[in-house]
Amino acid sequence: MGVVIVGSMAFDTIHTPFDKRERVIGGSCIYASIAASLFDRTGIVGVIGDDFTEDHLKTLKERSIDTDGVIREKGKSFFWEGKYHLDMNTRDTITTELNVFENFDPVIPESYKKIPYLFLANIDPPLQLKVLESMEKPGFVLCDTMNLWIDIKKDELKKVFSKVDCVVLNDEEIRQFTGKPNLLQGAREIQKTGPAYVIIKKGEHGASILGPGSFYFSAPSYPVEGVIDPTGAGDSFAGAFIGYMAAKNKNSDTDIIKKALVYGNAVASFTVEGFSIERLEQVSMRKIEGRIEAIRKISEF
Amino acid sequence: MGVVIVGSMAFDTIHTPFDKRERVIGGSCIYASIAASLFDRTGIVGVIGDDFTEDHLKTLKERSIDTDGVIREKGKSFFWEGKYHLDMNTRDTITTELNVFENFDPVIPESYKKIPYLFLANIDPPLQLKVLESMEKPGFVLCDTMNLWIDIKKDELKKVFSKVDCVVLNDEEIRQFTGKPNLLQGAREIQKTGPAYVIIKKGEHGASILGPGSFYFSAPSYPVEGVIDPTGAGDSFAGAFIGYMAAKNKNSDTDIIKKALVYGNAVASFTVEGFSIERLEQVSMRKIEGRIEAIRKISEF
Repeated sequence: MGVVIVGSMAFDTIHTPFDKRERVIGGSCIYASIAASLFDRTGIVGVIGDDFTEDHLKTLKERSIDTDGVIREKGKSFFWEGKYHLDMNTRDTITTELNVFENFDPVIPESYKKIPYLFLANIDPPLQLKVLESMEKPGFVLCDTMNLWIDIKKDELKKVFSKVDCVVLNDEEIRQFTGKPNLLQGAREIQKTGPAYVIIKKGEHGASILGPGSFYFSAPSYPVEGVIDPTGAGDSFAGAFIGYMAAKNKNSDTDIIKKALVYGNAVASFTVEGFSIERLEQVSMRKIEGRIEAIRKISEF
Repeated sequence: MGVVIVGSMAFDTIHTPFDKRERVIGGSCIYASIAASLFDRTGIVGVIGDDFTEDHLKTLKERSIDTDGVIREKGKSFFWEGKYHLDMNTRDTITTELNVFENFDPVIPESYKKIPYLFLANIDPPLQLKVLESMEKPGFVLCDTMNLWIDIKKDELKKVFSKVDCVVLNDEEIRQFTGKPNLLQGAREIQKTGPAYVIIKKGEHGASILGPGSFYFSAPSYPVEGVIDPTGAGDSFAGAFIGYMAAKNKNSDTDIIKKALVYGNAVASFTVEGFSIERLEQVSMRKIEGRIEAIRKISEF
């Protein structure tokens, strides 16, 4: 079937209470595409600067990730520097340099337009809309966002939500978007803006998904005692989710949707075990299946 | 088999963002004993003042809860007044009047001493120790506490932990007790102080339990969209947990332990649907089984 992912391609400098990495590869599009490519053919849309070398792209190409939608501009790639607090759940942004990402104007290659699965990772909502409109009737669209856009572009974001099948938000974003303290009530309100499915990301507590009618499903995260770097956990969760959906190609089968959520949790659990993509890129399907079985074991009664 | 529960018997004035109740029945011992009595014979140990009428005790006696361990003292009963924030997860204490609870000296009736299941709800750790030592080799002891005791009586609390089979703490208490940001690492550290099992209460995100070897289990909470009053959720969770354990009387059977956790979640989900015990006291086993099946459905894949 195939997946198209649009998002950021970046360098990150990451400080944790225990360690630090400078200018490692990052960005939602990178994490999500590596995760999705574990399950299905994946093409990406993004922008990079001169500093993003052919070697960096090779990492993606080795996974058969299609980079035809990647534009190279003069200048530096998007750069983010952040510092995680002791709880590893919260973080402060130290620096955000948009660089070539500032004028990102995603162009969808002809070869992508008929691909049925689309993940709009966290970018400016009008750009998400543009991408959505460039595709020829995608069968399933997943959409992420961030607190910034809820703050300053809520109307545009609502327009995006009204045109997608599933949104993925963390608990704080749901509360921020709806003003509802109760996550379920909040997710229900977001569902009313359009998407049939709303995924609630709860970090170390796992993820839940609300769907049509009374459909609701909740999966614990795989218990990781040694979290090294949480960066990209949400993006690799979303990438694995849509990759699994694409591989199965049965959008209205709730068993598939449940499993997609669990695969998302399993893949994200690898991401946080290393800095940047260093652990994610070593993941095999055998290892993922091992974690799926572990998650089953810890939630079955 | 039977359960003994020691804890507070109180009146609460509860403010939520939406409503208020004055001087309603509360206290850990009340919530936990009603929950436990759904599963097995339950006796309580506590202290009440003149204001705690026979009518209040009748509520317990109608459930065949043994009140032989309840002492009536001259004066007022323990009183707590609190205000929940908009998120209904956090609260501020407005008033705590210990009253007769200040000099609480629990005395275990002879008829209780051979009862094998004991729940030490949140009271002063030296009193928990005294109760523990008054019992004749209980087969399974569950222990709760609060941030205050972790702050000011950590050594005594450690002594209690070293003598019990299971402790039940929320995520903040685990982080406070251990200084570990990672909940699993924290729970593992608490396990090393003595208890074979550590329950992590995660409020709306459910509960997890860590046990000997690689035993770990996680269950979502039943999704309640209309939380009315969270007071007593943790106590009724713990009461249902130990009540179920007592009814089954197979402490080393991990399937029973998993189910006890899910029954705890199910019973707590009723408690929060009403103020004080008003919803908890209407719960039937048929209704509980309905929620167990619902929790199974939302976590099975």
